[in-house]
Amino acid sequence: MEKLKKYVSVKDEDHFYHQGAVELLIFNFLLILTILTIWLFKNHRFRFLHETGGAMLYGLVMGLIIRYVTKSPDVESGTVYECEKLKSGPSTLLINITNQVYEYQYKREISHHNVNGHQGNAMLQKMTFDPSIFFNILLPPIIFHAGYSLKKRHFFRNLGSILTYAFLGTAISCIVIGLIMYGFVKAMVHIGQLKPWEFHFTDCLFFGSLMSATDPVTVLAIFHELNVDTDLYTLLFGESVLNDAVAIVLTHSISIYSPKENPNAFDAAAFFQSVGNFLGIFAGSFAMGSSYAVVTALISFMHLTKFTKLCEFPMLETGLFFLLSWSAFLSAEAAGLTGIVAVLFCGVTQAHYTYNNLSADSKMRTKQLFEFMNFLAENVIFCYMGLALFTFQNHIFNPLFIFGALVAVFVARASNIYPLSFLLNLGRKQKIPRNFQHMMMFSGLRGAIAFALAIRDTGSQPKQMMFTTALLIVFSTVWVFGGGTTPMLTWLQIRVGVDPDEDLKAKAASQSTSNLDKNTTKAESAWLFRIWYGFDHKYLKPLLTHAGPPLTSTLPEWCSPVARLLTSPSAYGDQLKDGDTDYIINNDELTENYESSAHIPVPAQDSTASIQTTGKEDIQEGDLGLGGYKLQLQHTAGQPQKNSLA
Amino acid sequence: MEKLKKYVSVKDEDHFYHQGAVELLIFNFLLILTILTIWLFKNHRFRFLHETGGAMLYGLVMGLIIRYVTKSPDVESGTVYECEKLKSGPSTLLINITNQVYEYQYKREISHHNVNGHQGNAMLQKMTFDPSIFFNILLPPIIFHAGYSLKKRHFFRNLGSILTYAFLGTAISCIVIGLIMYGFVKAMVHIGQLKPWEFHFTDCLFFGSLMSATDPVTVLAIFHELNVDTDLYTLLFGESVLNDAVAIVLTHSISIYSPKENPNAFDAAAFFQSVGNFLGIFAGSFAMGSSYAVVTALISFMHLTKFTKLCEFPMLETGLFFLLSWSAFLSAEAAGLTGIVAVLFCGVTQAHYTYNNLSADSKMRTKQLFEFMNFLAENVIFCYMGLALFTFQNHIFNPLFIFGALVAVFVARASNIYPLSFLLNLGRKQKIPRNFQHMMMFSGLRGAIAFALAIRDTGSQPKQMMFTTALLIVFSTVWVFGGGTTPMLTWLQIRVGVDPDEDLKAKAASQSTSNLDKNTTKAESAWLFRIWYGFDHKYLKPLLTHAGPPLTSTLPEWCSPVARLLTSPSAYGDQLKDGDTDYIINNDELTENYESSAHIPVPAQDSTASIQTTGKEDIQEGDLGLGGYKLQLQHTAGQPQKNSLA
Repeated sequence: MEKLKKYVSVKDEDHFYHQGAVELLIFNFLLILTILTIWLFKNHRFRFLHETGGAMLYGLVMGLIIRYVTKSPDVESGTVYECEKLKSGPSTLLINITNQVYEYQYKREISHHNVNGHQGNAMLQKMTFDPSIFFNILLPPIIFHAGYSLKKRHFFRNLGSILTYAFLGTAISCIVIGLIMYGFVKAMVHIGQLKPWEFHFTDCLFFGSLMSATDPVTVLAIFHELNVDTDLYTLLFGESVLNDAVAIVLTHSISIYSPKENPNAFDAAAFFQSVGNFLGIFAGSFAMGSSYAVVTALISFMHLTKFTKLCEFPMLETGLFFLLSWSAFLSAEAAGLTGIVAVLFCGVTQAHYTYNNLSADSKMRTKQLFEFMNFLAENVIFCYMGLALFTFQNHIFNPLFIFGALVAVFVARASNIYPLSFLLNLGRKQKIPRNFQHMMMFSGLRGAIAFALAIRDTGSQPKQMMFTTALLIVFSTVWVFGGGTTPMLTWLQIRVGVDPDEDLKAKAASQSTSNLDKNTTKAESAWLFRIWYGFDHKYLKPLLTHAGPPLTSTLPEWCSPVARLLTSPSAYGDQLKDGDTDYIINNDELTENYESSAHIPVPAQDSTASIQTTGKEDIQEGDLGLGGYKLQLQHTAGQPQKNSLA
Repeated sequence: MEKLKKYVSVKDEDHFYHQGAVELLIFNFLLILTILTIWLFKNHRFRFLHETGGAMLYGLVMGLIIRYVTKSPDVESGTVYECEKLKSGPSTLLINITNQVYEYQYKREISHHNVNGHQGNAMLQKMTFDPSIFFNILLPPIIFHAGYSLKKRHFFRNLGSILTYAFLGTAISCIVIGLIMYGFVKAMVHIGQLKPWEFHFTDCLFFGSLMSATDPVTVLAIFHELNVDTDLYTLLFGESVLNDAVAIVLTHSISIYSPKENPNAFDAAAFFQSVGNFLGIFAGSFAMGSSYAVVTALISFMHLTKFTKLCEFPMLETGLFFLLSWSAFLSAEAAGLTGIVAVLFCGVTQAHYTYNNLSADSKMRTKQLFEFMNFLAENVIFCYMGLALFTFQNHIFNPLFIFGALVAVFVARASNIYPLSFLLNLGRKQKIPRNFQHMMMFSGLRGAIAFALAIRDTGSQPKQMMFTTALLIVFSTVWVFGGGTTPMLTWLQIRVGVDPDEDLKAKAASQSTSNLDKNTTKAESAWLFRIWYGFDHKYLKPLLTHAGPPLTSTLPEWCSPVARLLTSPSAYGDQLKDGDTDYIINNDELTENYESSAHIPVPAQDSTASIQTTGKEDIQEGDLGLGGYKLQLQHTAGQPQKNSLA
């Protein structure tokens, strides 16, 4: 008896500690393969399959192998045990089996029709990891990195358009997909493929909101490699970053929307509650994220007489930066807000304020750390998507629904981009040309966020159908549109090989010649932005960073004691080169420091080095250090006048 | 019904996705506090409480708060449900509760007397995380970093002594602790505190093996800060690194040891099986770890004509390096070996070969990445140790056992250090002086590994008693001995403020004057090491790195076509400066490149800059960039002749 027990405990221990090693090893293997493939592609300048497409492909093959090669059915799972004593599912359950007490942890609720699906093999179950891992571990570094590496100069130039596409566009997209899907669902009910009570209009809207998160990572990587027109790049990047945040909050709000009576009828109270929810969650998450960043900026800025500054200890600085940014995510989650949105705005704010206070070493450390985490997380997600097609056990392939979704996604993208571009062009000095609109339409790829939102809930049959459909749409868009980006650029005659700094100067010059007063520059940005910029430049930047004019000169006279206390000694030195002569150029300061210090860790005052910028930006945007490549599409690059915005 | 279900699913979802956020936030908060404290300490040059001690203290306070402030007993847990239909515990369990199927996942087996302990509050349970997280996530980066940052030059000078302390010393320590504890256990049985069948001699040995893992991280940090004599540093660091590996494998072997008949009697067959197991697992893990590193070296060395070298893409290179090193750990775990040992030797081999092939950028990236992961993981473990004192639910405090363990730990450390030092001094040219021995005796702190090994199995009462005792010993040694390091150094009159390079040269010079032939240098190292060194220098290094003589000159004539193919073009250039005139100096090449490139990312040929080395090494050893501090113990530093080894 004693011996037997010992044996059992050893066996259990072995099972316990090697648990997960094989599965993680499979992921490592897939990632290693992906990296080697990227290396191969980079060597052959092969742009028809992006690394994420490759990762997905490897995942697919591995999923196929796991599915059909390993077959070890777990007999016990699949049997449902009755428990009359319990009223609801407790978080832990102690069960006495043949005189041994085992502890079981609550995993999830499953609907009755899925019980048989559980009779699959154990390996498949192990490879299917917890969806919360996507939200809590894999997405935050990706989103933070997007915020942290945002090219603010170009972003703010196009702020209005980006916000329009992100907020209004996503809402349009969500509603259009929802309506089209509702039509298809009605048709499916009509031909008997679906029961009427299974799929409500809110479910269609839910699907619409999750399918509205675009993720043109493939397209952006190619844009970046080819130095496509910066405005197009910024519009697309800015839209995709903000649109993720909007789609996530929208999905959450729709899942909360519960009309009192008939779920298909419109309930105004519930609707406005959802809208309020959306705004509340978005604003709350925004506030949470930026306040953590402000705290980080304040700590790293702290300059007490008795203290060595934190930037003397790069490791502590990096650690604090990392932990506070992660805390922004966690606090938002813990407070019932959306962590992803918080971490996005935390990233933007960190780049805007904290980055200025960091030591040169920490600037590099943080950039490289987040770049690396982004790279790994992105490839893990795409590998997993490939795997999920075969390892996920409850797929429901419904051809009509899939077809409907494909149609809906394209119609929705079109009714997002074209009408909004038309409206925006009414107000913009620099119009968004037709070919840019086509390219944006073409770049409506779906990726990580749509997948993560879809896998979050796969408990019921409609949700499983949505998940399968979302997965297939991700596959097809990434492979077809991702692969078709380069031909499409050629076909649409979009400028490539643009130096972003030269471009900006050229545009600014052409504007100032046509219209000499400052109003042109201002007209580009909304009035709200100008007020914000002034406030930021005069008060926030001096308070939180070493940049900007000293507070003593910006604050009113009677505040001068406070101002002197809060102003960093180094700020006085900057006073000469400062002034409010040109919003855009001042706005560039951070970005330029950023870029040059990413390349060379030493001082960064060479704002004239426009020739080097291409090489620098390669590193900044995390394209794996692909520096000095010749452009393949020289003939398109040869027609800059034709396609330029001026 | 429909609405209710929706409500339930939303509620569940919320519960599900915010799960873990609060707990992680608490950890983040503790880590942020720790970092701020370190900053404060660094500013005040306060060395009586090391950061790990601080982390533990904060954990303790937080544990106290969680324990006594949050009280929300989970009613359901604590009740044991009967299940007659099952024969053994399946990995997943589907349970039908009021017509809803819930999925439960197997967590662990618990013994009957612990069932009531589960009636604690839910927060405590959540804060107690899975012990496998220590082994699979937190320990590997710490151990890898130790291997990767090993100062090989000094390490190889003292290889024999380090191996003796690590292998023989750990075995002695394990047996001595085991025997003393067995005495105490007998006494406890005698006075009725323990039932005789609860605690066998193998359990005592198990306790002995886990308590044999020393972790002088606190002491080493102070040594490094004060630039204590390099030989002492190396002996202690080398011993602690290898001794962890030995202790882990030893614990595993002892847990497998199961004598056929009476568990207290000696069973020769089972004993030799355990010894075989130990050797097999150790050798297997070693082979696994180093072969992954060799693969990494080969990939990063690959230089095909059509290919850009991998080092052109620093991100890919870093990614591959990281993934392959982690794969070494996972493969060893999956193969039933010890991942920690594999990852240690993987780190050593990576530093020896792969590091030479990396681009300057990747050298820095990998160093900083692992340094950062090490920093975080170490502080998380120490925070958690503090927390565990109050949040762990099944502590068994037995004063006699704790007292016995304290006595045993000291006696064991003494019978490890003093006899072995005596034996080693018989063979060593440079004797280990008395004060070094006392310092090594004093530095027998217990830390992360002992804790991780103890928390691995807390299923039975004896194991819980061991866990509680191990935790208290970690606390007391870290606080008392960690805090007492600086006074102890002064009291023992150990040299501080030693420049490692100067030191080595001085020692080499004093030797070469006393004995002019090369044999002195060789006599220091074992013959085995010399053979290995020759082989490594002539064949492995040229094959795997760009360093060393070209293979064409080292391989026999008839191999020349193969040799030409395998030799890197840059190797021919190195031929001039190469030769086998001095083993030690050649051996330094890597270390010096390593140090200088850690500081300045650009070329690293300045092997003469001995004055700068102190600053460089600060960064290399990851002491958070604490560079230019004045030494506080100048009066000890003023007596170098008295305590020097010569």
